[in-house]
Amino acid sequence: MPHRDDARWLAAAVALAERARPLSRPNPGVGAIIVRQGMVVGRGWTQPGGRPHAEAMALAQAGDAARGATIYVTLEPCAHPSARGPSCADLLVAAGPARVVIGITDPDPRTAGAGIARLQAAGIAALCVNDPAARASLAGYLLRRTAGRPHVTLKLATSLDGRIALPSGESRWITGAAARAHVHRERARADAILVGGGTLRADDPALDVRLPGLEPRSPARLVLTRGAAPAGWLALPSPQAILGDTPELARLLHLFVEGGAHAAAAFLAADLVDRVLLYRAPIFIGDGHAALGDIGLASLPDAHGRWQRTDQRQFGPDILDILERAR
Amino acid sequence: MPHRDDARWLAAAVALAERARPLSRPNPGVGAIIVRQGMVVGRGWTQPGGRPHAEAMALAQAGDAARGATIYVTLEPCAHPSARGPSCADLLVAAGPARVVIGITDPDPRTAGAGIARLQAAGIAALCVNDPAARASLAGYLLRRTAGRPHVTLKLATSLDGRIALPSGESRWITGAAARAHVHRERARADAILVGGGTLRADDPALDVRLPGLEPRSPARLVLTRGAAPAGWLALPSPQAILGDTPELARLLHLFVEGGAHAAAAFLAADLVDRVLLYRAPIFIGDGHAALGDIGLASLPDAHGRWQRTDQRQFGPDILDILERAR
Repeated sequence: MPHRDDARWLAAAVALAERARPLSRPNPGVGAIIVRQGMVVGRGWTQPGGRPHAEAMALAQAGDAARGATIYVTLEPCAHPSARGPSCADLLVAAGPARVVIGITDPDPRTAGAGIARLQAAGIAALCVNDPAARASLAGYLLRRTAGRPHVTLKLATSLDGRIALPSGESRWITGAAARAHVHRERARADAILVGGGTLRADDPALDVRLPGLEPRSPARLVLTRGAAPAGWLALPSPQAILGDTPELARLLHLFVEGGAHAAAAFLAADLVDRVLLYRAPIFIGDGHAALGDIGLASLPDAHGRWQRTDQRQFGPDILDILERAR
Repeated sequence: MPHRDDARWLAAAVALAERARPLSRPNPGVGAIIVRQGMVVGRGWTQPGGRPHAEAMALAQAGDAARGATIYVTLEPCAHPSARGPSCADLLVAAGPARVVIGITDPDPRTAGAGIARLQAAGIAALCVNDPAARASLAGYLLRRTAGRPHVTLKLATSLDGRIALPSGESRWITGAAARAHVHRERARADAILVGGGTLRADDPALDVRLPGLEPRSPARLVLTRGAAPAGWLALPSPQAILGDTPELARLLHLFVEGGAHAAAAFLAADLVDRVLLYRAPIFIGDGHAALGDIGLASLPDAHGRWQRTDQRQFGPDILDILERAR
């Protein structure tokens, strides 16, 4: 049975899970928090490379204090032992908490429901609350498991009239320093970044993460091209190729599509965009380069109902609208 | 000396002034409110055709209660008698209020400062507080007086990527019914509406006001064309021609530019836009017609610092950003 403070503590576990991104890949970035009589006695998140898991880290911190406590974890604890250690379900049973509150069940067939069942069989009050924030936090992992592809974020940075450059190609800068710093932060949350072949040839973008302390998180670099990729880049011949199961692709949970207009349009046309970050500077450009090429739209009714705005933020003079797939 | 409640009562006068728009033209839409011991004893706004003035209407309502009261008025009371009646300064002196709080001074050389001086000479505590809301409310009149042109609002209704139609020309509908109803309300506040010649030929837009009770406010219709205008329309050969002093043009305080892309761009290029209403639907269109044609932008730094967002509103799924000229 849910308790009054469950939502609050689970939100704290979701916040901890953010620390796992993106280095936990290919494992999901999970957060866990252990609460005993209203006090936090352990916190954990999936460590780089995927181990230790969040629960193991939190339990190690809590020690004996975990006995009789409540453990909040964003994803169902794994039920399958691996060569790298025992399953989290076994660890939890050994630690003896009174309750385990789980954000969402794990679609991994080795766990799916078996993690909760193991806890309940040991007399622990384990329940899954199907929490939307936990689900959003694990979107990349869920799509990997259910659709065989990463979660795709498309970044657009435009003028008020949807332009990304002057007719001359001049594009620096449309948005300001604060918005561009936020792009670096979003890059640092992704496993890979993609640009179009034209953008790569024209701009030779570094696409690194220029934020102190986050440089090691600079993601893998993909280029949308039917040709060969330059050194350090992986060629993706089409947006649909992101469904591939090569070792390089299968480990990606979150892809960040940077542009340009052709690559952005290709991912939209393929219906392979889950989230859009639309940064807009308060300027008009008029004639110039459009943010999007042909997305294959046949008529206006087809365009409606696909996106809902879930957040808006201000960066200096610029506005970021966040849109999520609605269907 | 300002009193504690002055700002609140002046804001009420500004709200009353809105009722004068646009039928007071060519006179400014002014609001007045008379307060005695914390109670409203008279309210007024400029009547259709420009008379009676707001002060005369409020004083007629208050009668003897105006004596010793405080009168709030958005614009300095006129100091010049006309064939249509005495000056408001004379009316106020006769009514004998204790105080008169004025939003902004009148740039009309027949009044400019003389209205306040007349009141003060009669022993009334008259002061001008230079109120930003009153100034905004009178923007059309002020530009008419100081720049010889109306206040210009540009309406844009686009997709997230700045498109106003598919390649086929299909444009109905991008924004939803609530946003379109708001456009009708904004039309009803304008003295005239302008469209480009191409839009007029392609769409034959009615540009009337389809809101119950507001139909009589349907504004005059201008078309941006070097050719002849059809019946019921006035031809404007260029945006700069709005500075003309023909009887038809000299009475316009507020112009609403509806589009299309060429007309919108021409007014931006001429730096003759004071306010932008940017309605955006949460859709992507990709290839299609851009919201703006060439605005003559030479380089990106020239684009920055021109606009500040002053308000945002939601209409169903659509967002309206209001931008005002920053320089």
